Amino acid sequence: MLIVMRGDASQQEITGVVSRIEECGLNAHLIEGRERVIIGAVGEARPVGHDIFRIMPGVEQVMAISRPYKLASREFCPENSQFPVGGLTVGSNEIVIMAGPCSVESRSQLLEVAQAVKEAGANVLRGGAFKPRTSPYAFQGMGEAGLELLAEAREITGLPVVTEVMSPEQTPLVAKYCDILQIGARNMQNFALLHAAGASQRPVLLKRGMSATIEELLMAAEYILSHGNRRVMLCERGIRTYETATRNTTDINAIPVLKAHSHLPVFLDPSHSTGNWQYVAAVARAGIAAGADGLIIEVHANPDQALSDGAQSLKPERFAEMVSQVRMIAAAMGRNLAGQAMPVFPAVQQVALDARM
Amino acid sequence: MLIVMRGDASQQEITGVVSRIEECGLNAHLIEGRERVIIGAVGEARPVGHDIFRIMPGVEQVMAISRPYKLASREFCPENSQFPVGGLTVGSNEIVIMAGPCSVESRSQLLEVAQAVKEAGANVLRGGAFKPRTSPYAFQGMGEAGLELLAEAREITGLPVVTEVMSPEQTPLVAKYCDILQIGARNMQNFALLHAAGASQRPVLLKRGMSATIEELLMAAEYILSHGNRRVMLCERGIRTYETATRNTTDINAIPVLKAHSHLPVFLDPSHSTGNWQYVAAVARAGIAAGADGLIIEVHANPDQALSDGAQSLKPERFAEMVSQVRMIAAAMGRNLAGQAMPVFPAVQQVALDARM
Amino acid sequence: MLIVMRGDASQQEITGVVSRIEECGLNAHLIEGRERVIIGAVGEARPVGHDIFRIMPGVEQVMAISRPYKLASREFCPENSQFPVGGLTVGSNEIVIMAGPCSVESRSQLLEVAQAVKEAGANVLRGGAFKPRTSPYAFQGMGEAGLELLAEAREITGLPVVTEVMSPEQTPLVAKYCDILQIGARNMQNFALLHAAGASQRPVLLKRGMSATIEELLMAAEYILSHGNRRVMLCERGIRTYETATRNTTDINAIPVLKAHSHLPVFLDPSHSTGNWQYVAAVARAGIAAGADGLIIEVHANPDQALSDGAQSLKPERFAEMVSQVRMIAAAMGRNLAGQAMPVFPAVQQVALDARM
Amino acid sequence: MLIVMRGDASQQEITGVVSRIEECGLNAHLIEGRERVIIGAVGEARPVGHDIFRIMPGVEQVMAISRPYKLASREFCPENSQFPVGGLTVGSNEIVIMAGPCSVESRSQLLEVAQAVKEAGANVLRGGAFKPRTSPYAFQGMGEAGLELLAEAREITGLPVVTEVMSPEQTPLVAKYCDILQIGARNMQNFALLHAAGASQRPVLLKRGMSATIEELLMAAEYILSHGNRRVMLCERGIRTYETATRNTTDINAIPVLKAHSHLPVFLDPSHSTGNWQYVAAVARAGIAAGADGLIIEVHANPDQALSDGAQSLKPERFAEMVSQVRMIAAAMGRNLAGQAMPVFPAVQQVALDARM
Repeated sequence: MLIVMRGDASQQEITGVVSRIEECGLNAHLIEGRERVIIGAVGEARPVGHDIFRIMPGVEQVMAISRPYKLASREFCPENSQFPVGGLTVGSNEIVIMAGPCSVESRSQLLEVAQAVKEAGANVLRGGAFKPRTSPYAFQGMGEAGLELLAEAREITGLPVVTEVMSPEQTPLVAKYCDILQIGARNMQNFALLHAAGASQRPVLLKRGMSATIEELLMAAEYILSHGNRRVMLCERGIRTYETATRNTTDINAIPVLKAHSHLPVFLDPSHSTGNWQYVAAVARAGIAAGADGLIIEVHANPDQALSDGAQSLKPERFAEMVSQVRMIAAAMGRNLAGQAMPVFPAVQQVALDARM
Repeated sequence: MLIVMRGDASQQEITGVVSRIEECGLNAHLIEGRERVIIGAVGEARPVGHDIFRIMPGVEQVMAISRPYKLASREFCPENSQFPVGGLTVGSNEIVIMAGPCSVESRSQLLEVAQAVKEAGANVLRGGAFKPRTSPYAFQGMGEAGLELLAEAREITGLPVVTEVMSPEQTPLVAKYCDILQIGARNMQNFALLHAAGASQRPVLLKRGMSATIEELLMAAEYILSHGNRRVMLCERGIRTYETATRNTTDINAIPVLKAHSHLPVFLDPSHSTGNWQYVAAVARAGIAAGADGLIIEVHANPDQALSDGAQSLKPERFAEMVSQVRMIAAAMGRNLAGQAMPVFPAVQQVALDARM
Repeated sequence: MLIVMRGDASQQEITGVVSRIEECGLNAHLIEGRERVIIGAVGEARPVGHDIFRIMPGVEQVMAISRPYKLASREFCPENSQFPVGGLTVGSNEIVIMAGPCSVESRSQLLEVAQAVKEAGANVLRGGAFKPRTSPYAFQGMGEAGLELLAEAREITGLPVVTEVMSPEQTPLVAKYCDILQIGARNMQNFALLHAAGASQRPVLLKRGMSATIEELLMAAEYILSHGNRRVMLCERGIRTYETATRNTTDINAIPVLKAHSHLPVFLDPSHSTGNWQYVAAVARAGIAAGADGLIIEVHANPDQALSDGAQSLKPERFAEMVSQVRMIAAAMGRNLAGQAMPVFPAVQQVALDARM
Repeated sequence: MLIVMRGDASQQEITGVVSRIEECGLNAHLIEGRERVIIGAVGEARPVGHDIFRIMPGVEQVMAISRPYKLASREFCPENSQFPVGGLTVGSNEIVIMAGPCSVESRSQLLEVAQAVKEAGANVLRGGAFKPRTSPYAFQGMGEAGLELLAEAREITGLPVVTEVMSPEQTPLVAKYCDILQIGARNMQNFALLHAAGASQRPVLLKRGMSATIEELLMAAEYILSHGNRRVMLCERGIRTYETATRNTTDINAIPVLKAHSHLPVFLDPSHSTGNWQYVAAVARAGIAAGADGLIIEVHANPDQALSDGAQSLKPERFAEMVSQVRMIAAAMGRNLAGQAMPVFPAVQQVALDARM
């Protein structure tokens, strides 16, 4: 931690800060600049809040140096994390595509789309049984009946299943039925839920909050990791900005930034990050080109009949087209889609991209 | 709902939309403009999602006309809501000031500050027993022991108590000990929690999410109100923007906007909305001048020893100074602080401000 | 400047940075932390870019310590700047209200409104002769003919005049006719224009850019000040955020932040910062309560006939009401409106607020 | 235009709006909904401001239907615009890469990097002679001497040259020396400059403002196009958001959105949109995968000696690597880099992407 003193700080104020640092069991190092003194506090064995220094007389600013997350950091684990999820290896050279409807609406709706996304090349089936809805008057999901349908669809298609869990007490139930727990954007800082997901030892797809920083996303991952649950997948799903032409703004920068600062696999959800099916394929391709390890896509056989998120859902045939485009981009990156051979692409070896950046 | 067709929409596409509107039990009205056709769908008995129209061929845009919230709206209740909370009347001409430490840390810490804020003019004691913390390694609150201390402080000072509740299953416990349930910014769209708070029938202080729109805040209030719990207080606590000079950006516009669109009482939390004790008094004054019905302020006897939020906490003597400033601003608005006489201010009658705007 | 080295930086990389610091004529101070080394570069005689260090091998981050502006800073001038503008003293205990139409549209329109705002208590007449418009097809202003009308209105009413200048070559012309040059939000970083305004030696009302930070606003002021033109007024006019309920988000925090970091007078433009006449008075009151030194308000005799910004313009009678409300808030702050006696308010002396905060 | 009346609007207020519409030479169409009346104003021969309706009694909201830009819209020109620029065809299937230093610093610096970027595959040389700088104390560019060096570099390398123009009066000078005028983000709404660029008839690279919406970018393009200058290239360069992990947030959605709404070629500037050389290649690949027609990249032989933007500049060898990666992504999109053969990639024909989306 670095404590920047005001230009007019007195000697006594400087001494006060130094004493306080030492009371915290740290060592103080002074830098006397032309305009002001800066004091480094080193040896942090455990986190010390900034606030206790920020408020001391004569202090202008306190700056963190250590990253606040450990287990999620690349320094903790320099290699990309790879782990098994329902027969796949997430974080490997193989790109994973999760797809399915926003909400489970009925048996026939789910089974039809499950079969369609499988044929088009999806590796994981998504579908919501519990839905967070801005309006109390909107469809709130089928609940456990939806989970049962997801389990049935898994049996029929062989695809592992990801679904959202919305509260700690739901966690055991959801974990019973599905392969991957999704924590939605609105719950990224629902700390009780993060603890429950960590304790479940299930793989977790953790979505970035609508206005969460990249650092906060990694801190949320840290909550799960701190329970010894290492199977965390990070998911960029667009952030809220002033731009209204799309529902959210896809923060494509987040993909290389997350790959640089963390070892965890990174997914992109272009359905939510654009909010418009017309832009989903373009942004899906961009995500893979930027280095994402997978995608999660909303697909509905009849988007205009969907009970939620129809406007951003692809029809199965458009999804299939998107997959074939993504397959080409993956090949250009020297990667292939999970369960599929790489297209013939002789020049690949020459450019073999560092998967880390 | 208005459906704007593309300039090149075919007659068949227009007919398709009209049929769909009629299938939904609504009436369609066409406006044929110079460049495009617009179709009004009227007679909405129940909410119909936009998405089913947005995705239809030939449709360019769908626009909502009805506000998505009802019970929270001024149209539903043209007069300001006033209701009793622990001996006070919130939403009346009297301004309510809630104050206390960010976290309950110990018996002596809490009792000392409770006494101090009472003497300075606070009407409600705040203090956190369960703390949402970005880092899993930070102090997470005293839990039930903290609730017991709050109840003891209430007995001693006579001040009603507000504290944060973080999950549905905590709600009965928190409701047992405290007078007002606070729902924090991170949980504004934790719908399970909103339902629990609604069901509790306790007064609720609902904080705006860090990147929630004003409409989303009113939708969250609607969740609580839809349980028949009418005692909801809205609280602006700053939003996340690109500006980093302060921790958040106080959206002062939100105060007159909320007063115009809703009948619910509006509070301001300048401690979080600035994140810096130096700016708290100025922004507290601004909030009252803009028409807020109350304030919630962090106060700590020794901010530099606080386990959380020290940098934005006022010392008791600074808090007392802020209260006396706010008292003058309130008088200029023709209002007084709850439990205090208005300062002599003869010109007030002339300007008597419309409390609604 | 502080240079934070990566945790795995080699000794050679550290030495490289130290050498580079010394080549720049600065001194290097090392802090060896538990996880990484931090190097302070002190003695900055002239600004050295961060970038040259950020890109060096082994460097993780570079942090500025010195503020990038000097002349605009409170450290440079601890007292509030006060200066004469057209018979007023801006920055004093007297609050200045600038008011008038968005655009000068005709002689009768301007003279009518000028008379009305004067009677209601305005001290300066505003009106645009050159208009920045998002659309090339919108009304672009009357140009020099508008300047002539402003000069005539000044002669008739005695009010000094403020108007926007949009390019360096316009500056002498605008300076010939008006008392205060306004630099609009879109031009806050039009550096050629800032130089011209600085060279003009006219008082300047400098509006914050729509997404400018507070620091960038002060840097823009520095451009003007560096020409020896000390009469700079800063103006908060709302920033662009995700919230769409109002045209912009009034950053009320900016007022105490600017007062803390700079000695320059601070104005608020609630017409643009809300974009809706219904909210102008509430936000104007908030601005004065937060410590602003003045306001700039759009007033139009027939807002529904205005060629620009009608929706945010007050009618003269509403403006008069706003002035009387602001007068009460000012009195609660121990201040009065320029040219008006303070209302009888016996308690004022007790709370006399520090105008600096 | 659609005018939404308040739920409690009187018949007289409705009639008032209808009359006003007819006074404007438009036709009024009423939709009587369950809760409120909506009035469509059709037949807009020329733009009518919203404000005149927004402020009328009984009006709740006014909504635009027509897009405010015409010449820039896809409706105006359904095919992608293609045009010659210095021997290249911008907007074609060939991707154009502009590269070079942020600032022209010296003859040797410029010629060295010009040669290097040409060899690596760049098609256009970039370099700043006039620099917009936040600080008045920072390096402001070499001015005309820099333009002469750019012209010399063009002669030696054969690469056309793009450079920023900062004010109307500079325009003829800059147009004399360079092939493409760049309008920077800070000047996107410098309307005098847009007019001058339009009048110059030079190709223009128009950068999106730091907080400009996509619609505002298209309106700025409209200013240039309205002078009959059709050679406008749009450039996404990152927007300002709350995220601080990167200098700006690349709005990758903007690429397919711009392609959908406009016929103009779209470029991406990943150097500014990330602000960090480490992320430039990943985001450049993403841009091409999302459908961009070109890139503009900062390259410097010695970034740690650069007078500006060193931290985001690639060294020539890293730039060459980026070009070879981008070439593979372009091939996966069925496109090639201008002046280069497509790499052998047999599967391309199968996926041939619609360049428009």
